[in-house]
Amino acid sequence: MSPSQETTAWVLIVTCDSVPGIVAAFSRTLFETGGNIIEMNQYNDVANGQFFMRIYFTHPGGMSDDGLHAELAAVAGRFGAMWSLRNTAVRQKVLIMVSRFDHCLADLLYRWRIGELHMDPVAIVSNHPVEACGQVDMGTIPFHHLPITPQTKTMQEDRLRELIGQTGAELVVLARYMQILSDELSRELAGRCINIHHSFLPGFKGARPYHQAHRRGVKLIGATAHYVTADLDEGPIIEQSVERISHSDTAEDLIRKGRDIESRALSRAVHYHLDGRVIMHGMRTVVFGD
Amino acid sequence: MSPSQETTAWVLIVTCDSVPGIVAAFSRTLFETGGNIIEMNQYNDVANGQFFMRIYFTHPGGMSDDGLHAELAAVAGRFGAMWSLRNTAVRQKVLIMVSRFDHCLADLLYRWRIGELHMDPVAIVSNHPVEACGQVDMGTIPFHHLPITPQTKTMQEDRLRELIGQTGAELVVLARYMQILSDELSRELAGRCINIHHSFLPGFKGARPYHQAHRRGVKLIGATAHYVTADLDEGPIIEQSVERISHSDTAEDLIRKGRDIESRALSRAVHYHLDGRVIMHGMRTVVFGD
Amino acid sequence: MSPSQETTAWVLIVTCDSVPGIVAAFSRTLFETGGNIIEMNQYNDVANGQFFMRIYFTHPGGMSDDGLHAELAAVAGRFGAMWSLRNTAVRQKVLIMVSRFDHCLADLLYRWRIGELHMDPVAIVSNHPVEACGQVDMGTIPFHHLPITPQTKTMQEDRLRELIGQTGAELVVLARYMQILSDELSRELAGRCINIHHSFLPGFKGARPYHQAHRRGVKLIGATAHYVTADLDEGPIIEQSVERISHSDTAEDLIRKGRDIESRALSRAVHYHLDGRVIMHGMRTVVFGD
Amino acid sequence: MSPSQETTAWVLIVTCDSVPGIVAAFSRTLFETGGNIIEMNQYNDVANGQFFMRIYFTHPGGMSDDGLHAELAAVAGRFGAMWSLRNTAVRQKVLIMVSRFDHCLADLLYRWRIGELHMDPVAIVSNHPVEACGQVDMGTIPFHHLPITPQTKTMQEDRLRELIGQTGAELVVLARYMQILSDELSRELAGRCINIHHSFLPGFKGARPYHQAHRRGVKLIGATAHYVTADLDEGPIIEQSVERISHSDTAEDLIRKGRDIESRALSRAVHYHLDGRVIMHGMRTVVFGD
Repeated sequence: MSPSQETTAWVLIVTCDSVPGIVAAFSRTLFETGGNIIEMNQYNDVANGQFFMRIYFTHPGGMSDDGLHAELAAVAGRFGAMWSLRNTAVRQKVLIMVSRFDHCLADLLYRWRIGELHMDPVAIVSNHPVEACGQVDMGTIPFHHLPITPQTKTMQEDRLRELIGQTGAELVVLARYMQILSDELSRELAGRCINIHHSFLPGFKGARPYHQAHRRGVKLIGATAHYVTADLDEGPIIEQSVERISHSDTAEDLIRKGRDIESRALSRAVHYHLDGRVIMHGMRTVVFGD
Repeated sequence: MSPSQETTAWVLIVTCDSVPGIVAAFSRTLFETGGNIIEMNQYNDVANGQFFMRIYFTHPGGMSDDGLHAELAAVAGRFGAMWSLRNTAVRQKVLIMVSRFDHCLADLLYRWRIGELHMDPVAIVSNHPVEACGQVDMGTIPFHHLPITPQTKTMQEDRLRELIGQTGAELVVLARYMQILSDELSRELAGRCINIHHSFLPGFKGARPYHQAHRRGVKLIGATAHYVTADLDEGPIIEQSVERISHSDTAEDLIRKGRDIESRALSRAVHYHLDGRVIMHGMRTVVFGD
Repeated sequence: MSPSQETTAWVLIVTCDSVPGIVAAFSRTLFETGGNIIEMNQYNDVANGQFFMRIYFTHPGGMSDDGLHAELAAVAGRFGAMWSLRNTAVRQKVLIMVSRFDHCLADLLYRWRIGELHMDPVAIVSNHPVEACGQVDMGTIPFHHLPITPQTKTMQEDRLRELIGQTGAELVVLARYMQILSDELSRELAGRCINIHHSFLPGFKGARPYHQAHRRGVKLIGATAHYVTADLDEGPIIEQSVERISHSDTAEDLIRKGRDIESRALSRAVHYHLDGRVIMHGMRTVVFGD
Repeated sequence: MSPSQETTAWVLIVTCDSVPGIVAAFSRTLFETGGNIIEMNQYNDVANGQFFMRIYFTHPGGMSDDGLHAELAAVAGRFGAMWSLRNTAVRQKVLIMVSRFDHCLADLLYRWRIGELHMDPVAIVSNHPVEACGQVDMGTIPFHHLPITPQTKTMQEDRLRELIGQTGAELVVLARYMQILSDELSRELAGRCINIHHSFLPGFKGARPYHQAHRRGVKLIGATAHYVTADLDEGPIIEQSVERISHSDTAEDLIRKGRDIESRALSRAVHYHLDGRVIMHGMRTVVFGD
């Protein structure tokens, strides 16, 4: 059940300490204000006493975002809950970053064009000139070349910060962006910056993972989409994908075969994020899949 | 989250016409009687106006089955809901039927012995003598040889019916039982008889599906676990599994490779059924996976 | 090991009745003319007495296509073999046909642009105007609009035949082309026309397979790439791919999720065909995978 | 094509430095001595100049092992090749080691009983008493309890060595044997000792990998079958298998779900080894899959 199929629908996300009565309180409020729950997922992490809930609901009689917000804030307050409410008719603004490999960018834009990813791409940023993405049709999405060197890294990130502010980007997608964000920027973007790592984490961290995989002689390669944190390659994992390989595959063959699983894992992770299906939980994620 | 991990836990299943307020009503009742929801899945089939819900909950303060039953019956009555409540500490009684291939039986019993399938196997029934299952350690589970011919089919099914009654079997598993149940018996066992078909339904219905698959030259073979209905090979599907094959596989190789996916699909389907994760819905099923 | 990695390499394909000495004869000839075998796959269909072989080899000392051809023709003649020799430096000319869904076309062209598919796209043909493929960057590949009605089918296929002749297309790819080729044209293109069917054949033949799959309540959907024959949906299968779905997926969700497996199965089948890895064998194929 | 299907068949394995003419020389010798090649796989590691070949052939006219051996030794000598010849009618003697988890042992024995694994199990060895494998029907296979402590490790391995010698075991399978073999014994058993590691190597080396995986929040778990070397968890990988998991799976759930992929990866690796489909190549393997 995808948000796109209903025009006036909302996704409510709630996280809090686990106590009895949370489901009852929220579902009662939704019912009393005329809401209709279409899909609901709830999970209790018993070991850590944490409660997670996603409710996808409509308001057949109509309801303003502000009105809903006020009602739900009151309930959330009683439980000290972290929560968010999103009107699914409003598309999230997304900034996509890329370097020399453009297959993930091409895949994201294609899925956006055919209506599969409900987002509003506000900018494409690369540390290389636009020619490096020569195979991709960017249409009218503004392209920004932000070159980077060890000396200019701080300045480059300032320009990036500015761009995020100006465009109002709510999500930053590192679509094979081969630079490492500074700890500071990683922290600022916590929970709204998704990276695709071209290995099956935690195997083959760091540089040239396909060459590492080839040397090691693995029989499956993988790709991992995760939220970016200051701790490189250790961010909460959203989605992973694998592909079978054989002894006759060279490192170059692995790179070729890896493109598919990178694109697939990243587009799924972005889809789940945009659909409000992912909740960060320490170094793990709760993903209420569709 | 598996029922086995909590000693006093219940699974509540609710199906009814979709109207606002169902979640609110049930969750309120559970809360007011001291229940604590651990895991909840709800799905609305918007196209057909049907509501499906599974709630896995505990009663930290203790509660009798009868007390809970009465409270929930009142709520269910208001919505005209079909519902069930199961105390997860009570294991379901299961009767397993088999013919000459015993790999699914062996797999089910092994998973039961190591505590993976929370069931109580009350009988093993075969249309062949016990020697046909010579590779399987049946322990102290009673084995019943119920031979069958076209002439004795009605009588054989009468004896089977009797056995189901005597043992109190709540679930019948056809673990490569190669006889077709009569329409009448299929109807009697509706929703509590699971079959494994050795193909990826709806492809290759009927006899010798691996030989059909080999002739057709498919590149993947499959297995399908489904509830038995009077309409052969058309029952609601619970789980499917596939395996890649190649041109060099003979029909015999397909039979060998198929054993794994048959065992896997059947044991998962039985596991989901025992966990109260499957709800029949016409010729489809709702499966709230774990 | 992909042909692209060697500049002067050949792929030799041999099919014949199985007798002893075929491998010895061909490998000796290659050795004596200075060839070096890099990768070799041989398979004997014992049940049908058929022999299949693919040899990928180089000629470090250099060799003309004509010279090689003459030497190999002599050997092939002794065994009455069907055979082909292809210089991997020469790209095959490919004509791609499409209707209103362009995801497979977009995928094929992207893989061609980044050097993954070693082909030379000589034409894109659609029964709809170019606007129907608005999301795809066709670059300088000529687009041909060949509309079709039941009345004009014969004429349209004549124009298509002409186009195949003019462009020298060696392979025709039906990339979600929603028209059925006539028996006559299917026969003419035998072994050089690949179609993608949007279901896991032989399940859900015919129209709207995702709607059929949704109604039937399957738990996995599939896509099948096969050679086109006069017998609709019954051509020799080259590659199949599947994806897990759930009860909450609507028919539209299946269509969306199906795009990935359609693109993947088709691009793999085209890749295998271009690499000389597929040999037709009645209604089956031998695929020497990479 | 499995060796079991032909009574008088051989598997020839050849590894050597890559030069032209190897295929021609061996195939000629086989032809001249009356052999008939049924399945042949050849792979050239161009980067390292290494040649690998597997030939599965019959001798319709009959041939002694000694006669064949002499003929092939002459050819192998010319190329300085490492090679082996195995009559597929002779089953390999296998010693299986286990500790407290017996699912892999149960799976291997079941596949052996139904004729899927063509081996002769000559001993089961455990560092725990036989009661620890209470769920497994060992039939008449001798069970040996070889307890181990840090102090007695050398002695225990001496007894193991003796047992291998007495039984003539050609392959040792560590079926969740939770002790680490000494460097010395690992070296002695090089290429004929297969271990199953319960993670997707190289991720989660060392102890309690499922707990590591749970903490890290991965979305797929894996299992790895590899040859044992002195370098722990770094031996050449033969087969890997993965399974999708979710946030709601506890570490115990991962252990449960992991059993299937451990059994599957190990039984496939053993099957490939027994079929002569695996060739070690430094820290990698060439696997000519079936």
